[in-house]
Amino acid sequence: MASDENVRVVLIGGSGYTGFEAIRYLVRHPNAELVGVFGPESELGPMEDFYPQLTKMCGLRQELFEAQKLAALRADLAMLCVPHKVAMSYVPALLEANLRVIDLSADYRLKDPAVYEQWYCPHTDPEHLSEAVYGLPEYYAEEIRAARLVANPGCYPTCAVLALAPIVKAGLIEPAGIVANAISGVSGAGRAPSAKTHFPERNENFEPYGVGSHRHMPEMEQVLTALTGRDVELLFQPHLCPMDRGMLCTIYATPTREATTQQLTETLQAAYADAPFVRVRTDVLPATKHVAYTNFCDVAARAAKGRVVLFSALDNLLKGASGQAVQNMNVMFGLDERAGLY
Amino acid sequence: MASDENVRVVLIGGSGYTGFEAIRYLVRHPNAELVGVFGPESELGPMEDFYPQLTKMCGLRQELFEAQKLAALRADLAMLCVPHKVAMSYVPALLEANLRVIDLSADYRLKDPAVYEQWYCPHTDPEHLSEAVYGLPEYYAEEIRAARLVANPGCYPTCAVLALAPIVKAGLIEPAGIVANAISGVSGAGRAPSAKTHFPERNENFEPYGVGSHRHMPEMEQVLTALTGRDVELLFQPHLCPMDRGMLCTIYATPTREATTQQLTETLQAAYADAPFVRVRTDVLPATKHVAYTNFCDVAARAAKGRVVLFSALDNLLKGASGQAVQNMNVMFGLDERAGLY
Amino acid sequence: MASDENVRVVLIGGSGYTGFEAIRYLVRHPNAELVGVFGPESELGPMEDFYPQLTKMCGLRQELFEAQKLAALRADLAMLCVPHKVAMSYVPALLEANLRVIDLSADYRLKDPAVYEQWYCPHTDPEHLSEAVYGLPEYYAEEIRAARLVANPGCYPTCAVLALAPIVKAGLIEPAGIVANAISGVSGAGRAPSAKTHFPERNENFEPYGVGSHRHMPEMEQVLTALTGRDVELLFQPHLCPMDRGMLCTIYATPTREATTQQLTETLQAAYADAPFVRVRTDVLPATKHVAYTNFCDVAARAAKGRVVLFSALDNLLKGASGQAVQNMNVMFGLDERAGLY
Amino acid sequence: MASDENVRVVLIGGSGYTGFEAIRYLVRHPNAELVGVFGPESELGPMEDFYPQLTKMCGLRQELFEAQKLAALRADLAMLCVPHKVAMSYVPALLEANLRVIDLSADYRLKDPAVYEQWYCPHTDPEHLSEAVYGLPEYYAEEIRAARLVANPGCYPTCAVLALAPIVKAGLIEPAGIVANAISGVSGAGRAPSAKTHFPERNENFEPYGVGSHRHMPEMEQVLTALTGRDVELLFQPHLCPMDRGMLCTIYATPTREATTQQLTETLQAAYADAPFVRVRTDVLPATKHVAYTNFCDVAARAAKGRVVLFSALDNLLKGASGQAVQNMNVMFGLDERAGLY
Repeated sequence: MASDENVRVVLIGGSGYTGFEAIRYLVRHPNAELVGVFGPESELGPMEDFYPQLTKMCGLRQELFEAQKLAALRADLAMLCVPHKVAMSYVPALLEANLRVIDLSADYRLKDPAVYEQWYCPHTDPEHLSEAVYGLPEYYAEEIRAARLVANPGCYPTCAVLALAPIVKAGLIEPAGIVANAISGVSGAGRAPSAKTHFPERNENFEPYGVGSHRHMPEMEQVLTALTGRDVELLFQPHLCPMDRGMLCTIYATPTREATTQQLTETLQAAYADAPFVRVRTDVLPATKHVAYTNFCDVAARAAKGRVVLFSALDNLLKGASGQAVQNMNVMFGLDERAGLY
Repeated sequence: MASDENVRVVLIGGSGYTGFEAIRYLVRHPNAELVGVFGPESELGPMEDFYPQLTKMCGLRQELFEAQKLAALRADLAMLCVPHKVAMSYVPALLEANLRVIDLSADYRLKDPAVYEQWYCPHTDPEHLSEAVYGLPEYYAEEIRAARLVANPGCYPTCAVLALAPIVKAGLIEPAGIVANAISGVSGAGRAPSAKTHFPERNENFEPYGVGSHRHMPEMEQVLTALTGRDVELLFQPHLCPMDRGMLCTIYATPTREATTQQLTETLQAAYADAPFVRVRTDVLPATKHVAYTNFCDVAARAAKGRVVLFSALDNLLKGASGQAVQNMNVMFGLDERAGLY
Repeated sequence: MASDENVRVVLIGGSGYTGFEAIRYLVRHPNAELVGVFGPESELGPMEDFYPQLTKMCGLRQELFEAQKLAALRADLAMLCVPHKVAMSYVPALLEANLRVIDLSADYRLKDPAVYEQWYCPHTDPEHLSEAVYGLPEYYAEEIRAARLVANPGCYPTCAVLALAPIVKAGLIEPAGIVANAISGVSGAGRAPSAKTHFPERNENFEPYGVGSHRHMPEMEQVLTALTGRDVELLFQPHLCPMDRGMLCTIYATPTREATTQQLTETLQAAYADAPFVRVRTDVLPATKHVAYTNFCDVAARAAKGRVVLFSALDNLLKGASGQAVQNMNVMFGLDERAGLY
Repeated sequence: MASDENVRVVLIGGSGYTGFEAIRYLVRHPNAELVGVFGPESELGPMEDFYPQLTKMCGLRQELFEAQKLAALRADLAMLCVPHKVAMSYVPALLEANLRVIDLSADYRLKDPAVYEQWYCPHTDPEHLSEAVYGLPEYYAEEIRAARLVANPGCYPTCAVLALAPIVKAGLIEPAGIVANAISGVSGAGRAPSAKTHFPERNENFEPYGVGSHRHMPEMEQVLTALTGRDVELLFQPHLCPMDRGMLCTIYATPTREATTQQLTETLQAAYADAPFVRVRTDVLPATKHVAYTNFCDVAARAAKGRVVLFSALDNLLKGASGQAVQNMNVMFGLDERAGLY
């Protein structure tokens, strides 16, 4: 890519919510250009047919993917906005075609294929697993800059890890016995209708799910352990909250020694002083409305009744998915990390 | 039915929203007993499996319907909470078994089978069409008391007719050229998930539908014409509103002569002085929250800029469906019209 | 009260949400009669002016309270739906007038006046503190039956205690180190508008508050300690959820020994087999929609990743306030515990 | 302003919703710079204290307005995000200081001061009323380009006028007897808490207000009459809808002659072929979710039952206020009309 040129991006999977949000960012990005959108045979056609929001914003059609089309598009980067299992079916061909890849699915997040297979399904591309970089730019910017393949983190792991990592790293809490209680807006469940997401069932309803069984739990443990050098063990408990957008983690941990709210807060502030998208809150607690429709993650820490309580909020589709993907793109291509995201 | 006995009710179609609401009313009704629930083969089992809300409230199972089961249940009344077309497949057998019937579907609302067939589908039980009584107790109480078969009105027609009938009848507005603008909560769309009712599509979204094509339009015209002796012609335009429950009509009409807000209001007050479930509002306008989870319909009238504007609000599942069905039952069996409904 | 007569109830504080809900229950209660509503000088007038929902349901006016009016009303019971501090200003006069009292405020919940004063304000009626019975009928039915003064529990304590008490009592979890993470619908904040409850700030927003400082925390600890004979210590963390009604606690505890989900569940089932308003869930987890607009509390237990996780859901205004008050009334006056509440 | 420089903007009234939205647009605008924010003495301080959303986005403080501060800021433009009456108290000083002005209040929208005073209050700056240009760029771009003072339209008028103007102009409907039924999200009520906007009163509630008395009605009539040369007379009826953002008008009119949906649609398409922010819908009807958080207005037309029905949707705070203000700024300063808005 010549320095005066835009990053040329193809997106695979334009009909789901993360694809849609990625497209919205890309069409207004000052240094990137969306040059193609690909999808499965059953979902081809003008993007505005899938999302009337895109009329007069994006004139592209979702086309059937064929690897040989990529050369003509002179694409630099592919964003994969498809479910796990589907994503890894595309990656080898994309890398082969000399594209760099940001995968928003879970396929390259878990380093150990055995762990992946325990929580997901057989891994069909173990070859590229080891080179994949975990796309959390606050911690892996250098690796992301050099990466061919970036595994964009899960929404819940992004939220929990940004709050926990500095505190665990500083040795302020026990790395085991952590509880991550979390809530998500319903867009996190994707675009396919179901009884669980039927409006009259979901509206005015708050409900736990996935007790001890959510796939983001091993991802959190792996990443926190890798980042902190401590053997992190946590229980993650998600809940569905009757709203569109937003995620909030309330994390409970045991302090290793008497830690004050001020010490905890300063630890977070030191960690994120230069992070453009993490804001450490003091008086005001994180709230989903402060981050909805943005790429920010707000974090805060409190000492209370002998425990450490951490709060973390983000937009599950943006900093939790497509916004973070664009942030990763910015890092990969040497752009201002904030380009197109403020 | 001996006068000291409860009305024994069987309900057909317990898994949808109107079935559920009817069951909630019936299990706490002081003069009725729900003795059986029937459904299709694919949906049998304990009612609490369909609706966890019913645990410790209703111990019945949804059983497969067989006409010969009715005798043993000594049922007096069947409530049909199934879709149109399905309802009329049950009615002949129920009447044959000497049950009285309240049908919550559209199958017996339109008097003219040709009109029914234009808007719905071929009518398979035209024989009982003529004897069916339109179940709007504020206007047809006497006929309902004597009826074997009651056609429970549609939600939108109940809402629009209760506001319009007295005003048209009094000759205060032109019977043609009426516009009924309406909104409904999403429970009105039923319990089957779809893209239209997927929470992230529906929440924070207000949207019109069915321009000139909603099936409740001919029902409104038929009932208003029958009730007022004038040839009522109206345009009905519904919208989906992001909430569970509630319906509100805003109706625009041309006054026949200078009519004041006071005259209009007094006309409504005279019409509903003895109606236990219609409340005429003066200072406070009808709002869906005032009627949600109740069997009330609130109405109001205003003269404004040379037009007459009427407002009407009810709970689409209660006064708009299951509550009205229970009110009809009360009338049919000589009970206090309010029994079990306040 | 003669056995064939209704319980005659006066309600103090009809303009707030708990007063309104109590009135709705009382006007349709088969064995009780609301004979008077009292309020402060600034809020007198027809109840329907405060709540248009009450038109044609309750014709009473909110009158200025004067103790001498009580005799003429031949009231048996006073329900206090006023804030803490205000409630204890009424109690002595009510008891003096030979009424039994159910106080929905916090004024008589904390047994130790020093604890009350630490969390609330100076106590002006310590004399009656010791005789007040904590109105959780699942545990104190016998005492409630005989009580003159019942302290109706807080919403969060009702929710947390119903899930925790049997498990702590059975010695299945450590009594210290418990975390009670909770969410509430916004009606829990009362009827006075504020920036926090302004619709555009609250809607689509999920937010923690009161870290380590919520007044319901000492109430939970006191009640659980009293009920179980163990020294219960917990951290309570509430959150505001964008919905009207409902409360859900997700409780994390350390098992004392290997306890399975089945053992935990059976412990709950044994505790609540005869409780008409507590439902133990197995396959389906508690969800606020299952209990909204009812007096039920749904509980469930799971063993997960070496912890015990408990869930508990109720309607904050009903089982969490006015419904529980009516349940207490039923117990106090020897009525069916479910009367008027199903 | 040199052609290579950004437009330098001061904003007056940063603490309300329109101020906040304008700031969000301005801080990311590629050709504009927000150089100062001014407010009343009671509301000074860092913008992030008013809106935590602005942390790491806008480091400005809201300062006390003093005209002499403007020179040092070298501001080109003032945006007034204050209520009517307050706005006109600033305008003379701003014009005097050689700034161009976009006023988001109603103070300069109504051309006839007598009409203004009938609906609002005495006009204190009639001198500048005649030079003010109505800031609807789809119709007044040329005048806006040259204007010193732009009166940014009301939200409801923008919505109704964009749908109606081409159809009235083309003579397809009668200019009198139009009904504009409209709904708005609650953010339209501003940021001050009240009983009407208290979450538990507003949520799950749909309610009409302002029958025949909303101040946007004369604005609609004035603008449509001016734009079409016909004497437009309409009844405007607004409703509050339980959602944050979005506005939808459903407009009923009498056709002058048989007009088909296709003719109506083509009339709209011809009018807005080159308008970057108006989208004419055909198969899909306008819905608030399609325009929320954007500067688009979606319109559609249908012939139904002898009437013409028009639909129009926009985001009340963006195309209905702050987005339109930025669009006006773009036009005034010769920028791409879409700059910073896509």
